[in-house]
Amino acid sequence: MFQSFNETASPEHGPARLAALRSELEREGLDGFLVPRADAFQGEYVAPRDARLAWLTGFTGSAGWAVALAERAGVFVDSRYRVQVKAQVDACFDKVDWPEMSLGEWIRDALPAGEIGFDPWLLTLDQKRALEKALGPVTLRACENLVDRIWADQPGAPLAPAVVQPVDLAGESHEDKISRISKALQADISVITLPDSLAWLLNLRGNDIPHVPIAHGFSLLSKDGTLRLFMEPSKLDGLEPHLGPKVSLHPIQEFLPTIRSLQGTVQLDPATCPMAVIDVLEAEIIEAGDPCILPKACKNAVELAGARAAHLRDAAAMVRFLAWLDREAPGDLTEIDIVRQLEDERRATNALRDISFETISGAGPNGAIVHYRVTEATNRKLQAGELLLVDSGGQYVDGTTDITRTMAIGAVGDEEKRAFTLVLKGMIALSMLRFPEGLAGRDIDPFARVALWQAGLDYGHGTGHGVGSYLSVHEGPQRIARTGFVPLQPGMILSNEPGFYKEGQFGIRIENLIAVEQAPALPGQSIAQMLRFETLTWVPIDLNLVLPDLLSDAERDWLNAYHARVFEQVAPLVDDVAGGWLKTACRGI
Amino acid sequence: MFQSFNETASPEHGPARLAALRSELEREGLDGFLVPRADAFQGEYVAPRDARLAWLTGFTGSAGWAVALAERAGVFVDSRYRVQVKAQVDACFDKVDWPEMSLGEWIRDALPAGEIGFDPWLLTLDQKRALEKALGPVTLRACENLVDRIWADQPGAPLAPAVVQPVDLAGESHEDKISRISKALQADISVITLPDSLAWLLNLRGNDIPHVPIAHGFSLLSKDGTLRLFMEPSKLDGLEPHLGPKVSLHPIQEFLPTIRSLQGTVQLDPATCPMAVIDVLEAEIIEAGDPCILPKACKNAVELAGARAAHLRDAAAMVRFLAWLDREAPGDLTEIDIVRQLEDERRATNALRDISFETISGAGPNGAIVHYRVTEATNRKLQAGELLLVDSGGQYVDGTTDITRTMAIGAVGDEEKRAFTLVLKGMIALSMLRFPEGLAGRDIDPFARVALWQAGLDYGHGTGHGVGSYLSVHEGPQRIARTGFVPLQPGMILSNEPGFYKEGQFGIRIENLIAVEQAPALPGQSIAQMLRFETLTWVPIDLNLVLPDLLSDAERDWLNAYHARVFEQVAPLVDDVAGGWLKTACRGI
Repeated sequence: MFQSFNETASPEHGPARLAALRSELEREGLDGFLVPRADAFQGEYVAPRDARLAWLTGFTGSAGWAVALAERAGVFVDSRYRVQVKAQVDACFDKVDWPEMSLGEWIRDALPAGEIGFDPWLLTLDQKRALEKALGPVTLRACENLVDRIWADQPGAPLAPAVVQPVDLAGESHEDKISRISKALQADISVITLPDSLAWLLNLRGNDIPHVPIAHGFSLLSKDGTLRLFMEPSKLDGLEPHLGPKVSLHPIQEFLPTIRSLQGTVQLDPATCPMAVIDVLEAEIIEAGDPCILPKACKNAVELAGARAAHLRDAAAMVRFLAWLDREAPGDLTEIDIVRQLEDERRATNALRDISFETISGAGPNGAIVHYRVTEATNRKLQAGELLLVDSGGQYVDGTTDITRTMAIGAVGDEEKRAFTLVLKGMIALSMLRFPEGLAGRDIDPFARVALWQAGLDYGHGTGHGVGSYLSVHEGPQRIARTGFVPLQPGMILSNEPGFYKEGQFGIRIENLIAVEQAPALPGQSIAQMLRFETLTWVPIDLNLVLPDLLSDAERDWLNAYHARVFEQVAPLVDDVAGGWLKTACRGI
Repeated sequence: MFQSFNETASPEHGPARLAALRSELEREGLDGFLVPRADAFQGEYVAPRDARLAWLTGFTGSAGWAVALAERAGVFVDSRYRVQVKAQVDACFDKVDWPEMSLGEWIRDALPAGEIGFDPWLLTLDQKRALEKALGPVTLRACENLVDRIWADQPGAPLAPAVVQPVDLAGESHEDKISRISKALQADISVITLPDSLAWLLNLRGNDIPHVPIAHGFSLLSKDGTLRLFMEPSKLDGLEPHLGPKVSLHPIQEFLPTIRSLQGTVQLDPATCPMAVIDVLEAEIIEAGDPCILPKACKNAVELAGARAAHLRDAAAMVRFLAWLDREAPGDLTEIDIVRQLEDERRATNALRDISFETISGAGPNGAIVHYRVTEATNRKLQAGELLLVDSGGQYVDGTTDITRTMAIGAVGDEEKRAFTLVLKGMIALSMLRFPEGLAGRDIDPFARVALWQAGLDYGHGTGHGVGSYLSVHEGPQRIARTGFVPLQPGMILSNEPGFYKEGQFGIRIENLIAVEQAPALPGQSIAQMLRFETLTWVPIDLNLVLPDLLSDAERDWLNAYHARVFEQVAPLVDDVAGGWLKTACRGI
């Protein structure tokens, strides 16, 4: 299994570890120390040795901070984790609603003046600036990581070997990528620290952290088209022929000394570049976004073909899983059984490299917990009359998938069906949309919500995130959300996942992946260029939950056409049993 | 008439006036001089003595700039005015597409180094900063206005008397406004230079410029709740009792000396505050928006009641006009006849103080010119088979109106009807919308366009602007447009005016004013607070242009309900002839 179901938090260690950290504070003459969830690479997942926030406090969520002061300590978590943090973290830490309360504000409240230590590898330039602005008279001091100092059995850095992502899957050689990205630099050299940027740029994949096939390392890309790669040499064993003469390999320990010796102008991304880099840099800094982010987001034709293939393979696994579920549920099935069966079906493709993230399997009220992770302790039995929400994905060498389906277990009530149909209307609205080039995710997000709005309902998360090509299931810069200001461009893959959650009762989410494409011009079209979405995900939507009367003719036509194409494409990929189920699941309404 | 139809531009004076200006440049040792359209108050309309751009270049549009250098000169106009500028401005001025080409960029191209003069009353802090950033080695020097120096018969400053806007129309005394605004200041003193802010704050109206009932002046609002008003004393004759003890009157010449002597902190709006103020200010500056803008935009219950009354009065005039049009058109009618008849009908209410702006009366291809102003030279006869677009409004003491209707003259083609119906769908979409509190105009703008988008069509202007309460027909901060980032709040009045324009053929726009209101909670509502729009405009939409098959049931229901309410409210206000026409115009479809 790529996923475990044990409770990984250990709140009981909190007080002793906090006390040990406070001793270190005293030794250093500091009034506090910052412990972010992030590692030096600012990714969503961290290696075990970087799980400092969890080790210190018990909190295992994917974002957050701790601040330890001499008298007070706080764990800062966002709205997704407010229930979880209470169960995972001892009372010696205050639980702080973040970002409503910022770290700076909280520290200023607790500490009239003083000095707070931080590990400069774990704080970005943007984060430091925001903190300093809020802290007033309290100052920040870069120092050794005090958690590492007290963490006796801290694991080592991950050392998984990297592998080549062949050009027949990447669609562009890394030489060509290096050449075009280096030509577009705004400075002599660009510091690239995001591991998925590096993986994309070099056509490399790795295995340093769960669920995202990246290898930790840093790089310096020069305007002359050469790249210095700083990575543990053992990870790159045998890869010199692939990397070629324009890429030079350096142990990671040489990164900072090299940064220190740079001359000319250096481009770095204040949102991701660690302060450790900035602190030693003597060359002139040009702040600009990571130059790989946008090119990586715009998938080429080969990557899109790979995504289509991966999604059909994944759809076959999903269909076998759904057919099994329909046959067996509720029985004695639990949420964990669901996760196991689905991973088994994906493994049966013989192509699964990893899951894209830990499967969310939420039955009944657990479906309303947006980032629910089932454990042995929370594991719920499926029950007739309840909904089951399953959000999952697979990492295949040709593409990353992410799909959510919500199923009726037995006969469910009208409230659930009505809400499901409204959510579906939003999902269809984006699927059918044509829109002028230049619009950003923010501009189209409301179309996914308006059917819910008219009923007084909404959901508290974005409608869509970018998705990588056998890379992170969450990637920027594109988003369908109020924070999505980057214009959508052909080739961008996004999720389309409106939902509705009734706390304590049920959760609904319907998610397809979609790719932005040029829309062919209509007769008489006055808009120069229009975009639309190609659907990548081909898995039935539970018709038992659809109230056809709430759909417009156009929406019903879309749904029927979608199911016809699901059947046409996926039936040949599954056995007769699943095929028979699929036929019914894809019936016209 | 509040409107004239003569061609006001005189391109033939351009060369001589530019030559005279260049002599002044030489005398001052300057390499160039900036001539904005704006006056010191940054409003949309200017008094005759401030029409420097028109006097110098001939260009009469409501936004733009001229730059005169020793060898080259340019007139900078936006996309609305690219045709007009060619007819109005002599070849001695380059016609520059602005803001695609910025002033700074153009100057830098034309002038390797040097010094450009500007009148510090006419340039805001934001504008100066943007210019300086773009200009590089070229510097700016504040100086006397060189156009004024060569403009022998420049008119004097307007001196129209101000009048009190009584509290039974304003809904809040100016004492209460001053008290609540002063308490919310971020500094000891706020500089308020926007005339409509001042008019709102003091419950005063004026007549210094056409179409916007404001009196030019400046003011300093103190945190202690007192206000210093700098205005030509003759304009305030007899108004001391209204203004009361908290408001002190000062001649406008005392404004700068007073600014110079200010101590403590001073709040000013970098988007509107003239450099003349900033240049002499010695106190600490706190940059913040004009503190009146948002409160002014959120109309109180009395202002909303006034708006409803003004709109019904205006609707009666519109209905009489439309009935006349239906009876007489096409005949020998021209666009100018339309303007005259409509103004006559508004005057017949005996309540019209001014028109809100110059009526746009565009027949056939002229309807496709978004900011068309009919002159004797362009005046077109109405013709059967063409559309007529009429965008107009009235200033009444209880409210400002703005309405666009597009009418079929005789039988028109299906292309026009289809486009009209798509535009109507957008207008109805906003009218029917419920949305969560916190959303801005940008978030709902796409709903007005999506029906057009699906046909490959769009329009090149925003969907809605804020509207004042017997003040400017264009006011911020709210907008329904891609540039609308301010959350919508109850009481804000906006236009809802999608359109479609086919160059050289026809123009369509349908415009109602709408007011943001709280939406009553629905059963089971999960969103804390929702907003919706109250419609203010009650005038028939030409059913001869509607293709009912393109409307959804909900849209058709909205249209029929709208027309039923138009008839119910307006029929009692018009005579039997117009009433008979109204009955047909409001028929169900």
